[in-house]
Amino acid sequence: MNSTDRIWIYDTTLRDGAQREGISLSLEDKLKIARTLDAMGIPFIEGGWPGANPKDVQFFWKLAEEPLQQAEIVAFCSTRRPHRVAAEDKMLQAILAAGTKWVTIFGKSWDLHVSEGIETTLPENLAMIRDTIEYLVSQGRKVIYDAEHWFDGYKNNPEYALSTLKTAIAAGAEWVVLCDTNGGSLPEEITQILREVKQEIDSEIKIGIHTHNDCDLAVANAIAAVREGATMVQGTIEGYGERCGNANLCSLIPNLQLKMDYNCLPAEKLTQLTTASRKISEIVNLAPNEHAPFVGRSAFAHKGGIHVSAVEKNPLTYEHIKPEAVGNQRRVVISEQSGISNILSKARCFGVELTKQDPQTRKILEQIKHLESQGYQFEAAEASIELLMLSMLDKRQEMFQIKGFQVHCDLRGESDRHYTTATATIKVSVKGEDILEVAEGNGPVSALDSALRKALVKFYPRIAAFGLTDYKVRILDSAAGTEAKTRVLVESSNGAERWTTLGVSHNILEASYQAVVEGIEYGLTLKSSTQQAITHS
Amino acid sequence: MNSTDRIWIYDTTLRDGAQREGISLSLEDKLKIARTLDAMGIPFIEGGWPGANPKDVQFFWKLAEEPLQQAEIVAFCSTRRPHRVAAEDKMLQAILAAGTKWVTIFGKSWDLHVSEGIETTLPENLAMIRDTIEYLVSQGRKVIYDAEHWFDGYKNNPEYALSTLKTAIAAGAEWVVLCDTNGGSLPEEITQILREVKQEIDSEIKIGIHTHNDCDLAVANAIAAVREGATMVQGTIEGYGERCGNANLCSLIPNLQLKMDYNCLPAEKLTQLTTASRKISEIVNLAPNEHAPFVGRSAFAHKGGIHVSAVEKNPLTYEHIKPEAVGNQRRVVISEQSGISNILSKARCFGVELTKQDPQTRKILEQIKHLESQGYQFEAAEASIELLMLSMLDKRQEMFQIKGFQVHCDLRGESDRHYTTATATIKVSVKGEDILEVAEGNGPVSALDSALRKALVKFYPRIAAFGLTDYKVRILDSAAGTEAKTRVLVESSNGAERWTTLGVSHNILEASYQAVVEGIEYGLTLKSSTQQAITHS
Repeated sequence: MNSTDRIWIYDTTLRDGAQREGISLSLEDKLKIARTLDAMGIPFIEGGWPGANPKDVQFFWKLAEEPLQQAEIVAFCSTRRPHRVAAEDKMLQAILAAGTKWVTIFGKSWDLHVSEGIETTLPENLAMIRDTIEYLVSQGRKVIYDAEHWFDGYKNNPEYALSTLKTAIAAGAEWVVLCDTNGGSLPEEITQILREVKQEIDSEIKIGIHTHNDCDLAVANAIAAVREGATMVQGTIEGYGERCGNANLCSLIPNLQLKMDYNCLPAEKLTQLTTASRKISEIVNLAPNEHAPFVGRSAFAHKGGIHVSAVEKNPLTYEHIKPEAVGNQRRVVISEQSGISNILSKARCFGVELTKQDPQTRKILEQIKHLESQGYQFEAAEASIELLMLSMLDKRQEMFQIKGFQVHCDLRGESDRHYTTATATIKVSVKGEDILEVAEGNGPVSALDSALRKALVKFYPRIAAFGLTDYKVRILDSAAGTEAKTRVLVESSNGAERWTTLGVSHNILEASYQAVVEGIEYGLTLKSSTQQAITHS
Repeated sequence: MNSTDRIWIYDTTLRDGAQREGISLSLEDKLKIARTLDAMGIPFIEGGWPGANPKDVQFFWKLAEEPLQQAEIVAFCSTRRPHRVAAEDKMLQAILAAGTKWVTIFGKSWDLHVSEGIETTLPENLAMIRDTIEYLVSQGRKVIYDAEHWFDGYKNNPEYALSTLKTAIAAGAEWVVLCDTNGGSLPEEITQILREVKQEIDSEIKIGIHTHNDCDLAVANAIAAVREGATMVQGTIEGYGERCGNANLCSLIPNLQLKMDYNCLPAEKLTQLTTASRKISEIVNLAPNEHAPFVGRSAFAHKGGIHVSAVEKNPLTYEHIKPEAVGNQRRVVISEQSGISNILSKARCFGVELTKQDPQTRKILEQIKHLESQGYQFEAAEASIELLMLSMLDKRQEMFQIKGFQVHCDLRGESDRHYTTATATIKVSVKGEDILEVAEGNGPVSALDSALRKALVKFYPRIAAFGLTDYKVRILDSAAGTEAKTRVLVESSNGAERWTTLGVSHNILEASYQAVVEGIEYGLTLKSSTQQAITHS
């Protein structure tokens, strides 16, 4: 494959993706997502708009302290304000302060938006594009120019739209990215307009595409642009984004790479796509779309009967690609082969040698399937799988045994002038001794956590260094209202290592307790807390 | 518009759509869906496969007793079994017994499936297609021929694939429908293959298209076929279907009709699309996809302040079609970034007239921003915003007042053999009377919810009809572990309307209680529960 076949993937999950209703990312979430994308081999990661969102500045600084492995992190900003000097524009100062090599500047292509949106003149908009890019280039930045509302603008006034693009190119933009901001274009329009644009600009100029899914065509539109020579594709994981979302990179990357022979990611990275997308949906705290193309849990699911036997004889009959190519798996009720090999490889990670023939292997698999049918989901909680496997192999050491707990919450007083208390008592048996402890907390879960630590720290002083670093709650079958099952994920740390455990119950306190207890138990099994930080999750 | 511009929509929600994991339709469900589709003006509705599913026979009989208004109801079946006589094939007898004018017969196009799937010879497969169609035509049926695995078959062995199609045409099929059964094709392949097919068959033959979404391209692929002359489009509501689903008619119909000027449905029917799709997702008991193109609740949602003022000046700026054209509506999302114009337009929806200059407008905005900085997030909880606005305008009626609650959870016994209890007591003042109530639940939140309802239902019997339809928990700043703040969203319903409320606290029970209490209060403010179903959330 020669270098002209490269398509540069530009992820904007952290900026445009975060516009999706219901997503609200903390600094820590953003850093985790950036590192996940980086590990996947995504070459460009848009991190945020430091000029509009001061919180984003910290994000760039954090990454400057601990840089990514391979990705370029990109800061995003609009052109300077009308009738200002670029060098004095605070937003542009903020983007420079982010300290990235690459910046993306978006500007107006559509005359309507110039006059009615930012309320300035058409020539001033051109000056804004020119000044902004020239200034950033003079400060040593590489500029990607996002031509906002490109397709609508071009349809309305092609001459003006082209003049904005030519201005950006003349000012030194490295890429010009054509955006279907309102998501209203059809693939044929994309094709036609790309052809016309190529007639008008230097053939050396690199073109990108940014599409939205308002017509259910974001992926098709991006592909249409690539066929016409676009070499950068902007999108988001799971297609997160405003309204109906952005182009879904989890669909685009496999289409481009497996079906159209473009080079987007190293082949071994593509096999991490499913895991990475599920991890990111956990971080943004949205249930992964089970029916998502390529990476969904149902994407390669076969119902019984003819399909199953045909697909086992020849996968081609009912599978359009090999699921392993994107790190997904065939899901067939009858065949548990893929499950077995998962168990074996997981066990190897934990230093436990199992074989296919081993009856224990099948027992472990059955227990995991049984628990998963009850709502457990081990993908994000490897410490819990390890404990489960050790337990089934009779290798789990019993450090302590919980005999029971009680939690009491009290709210008194009216509306604004009320106060609440939360108290937990716990009974634990440790090394032959029964311990009763009580603790208070901000809420019931923290009270329970405190009581447990208090009871155990006398026997295991190491626990004093343990802390909870993440706590997530997902309501399963949320349509069942407050009777629904709850899945709790707890991430714990001893200062050096991190691990994640899991609990499931109709009672949110019981689910939390399961996860907290396993978190402490797992921490106690770790040999050393002085080794390098590793994230198990 | 002349009649050649007509595209015939063929809905297969009841057959292919029902293959989606998690969908299981009763006879009653199927009848309701068929009548909803009929009322929308869909011309063809595939009802089921009476030969494979005896329950489906009843469905056709029910419709024979009480016929649809305008749609053709279609029975589905495979070709006869190998080496049998069509007139003696039980499956074909079952399809005749269904008594429909139209039947759809699917047959094999792909040589691989003939030899490895049904294990017969290539000539016998042609005979199966011919005999089946000829027999059904001789019995007075009109036949639609679904060429299963058409595109894969054609790519593998174009001569054989074409011979199956020509056989179906010669035997008397009214339509031939090209199916991308595995969903693996790209739009360019669809275009290319349609062009080649048209060279080979009589130009009078009507062509249909049936696509799946495994590459996120089902809608684009169907559109590509229509551009090449296909005049029937098969798909499902919300794109329900096996694996990643079928082509989504809720996207296809507006694209074809509003963007490409084809005639699919009468214009006044198109405006029922949003309501019909939500009604059908209620019937199949799946939450509607909020981010669905055209019909999703977020499809025309605007967040940023600049967007909102621009869209109110000129909707074209940020909307690719008029939301009313598909029966949807613009929604202004109140969030961190929201400005005065969001507040004003939201107030108007609630029937409250505010002006920009009104000092209360600014006070409301400031209060919302203050609460959002504490973790409240109103964009998903419009009932809570309304209560907040009414309260700040001194228009909120006090229905009841919570004086306090206590929640007690108990877990006893060891590991697998433990049991848990959850009990809540609550003190409420209603109409001058203090009420104490107690209730048990699966977990603490359901106990609290039950106690509150028990206390209030004596005073407000309407509460008996209220129920929680969704319960979501989000841990804010989850890195703070169990001390983190919790945001709870509760969706309530009175059987006709739905609304969403919100609570935030360090104590998950307090957050849940706030949301549950506001949910009941808001329900009591609704004038009537007999009006038509409207979704407030």
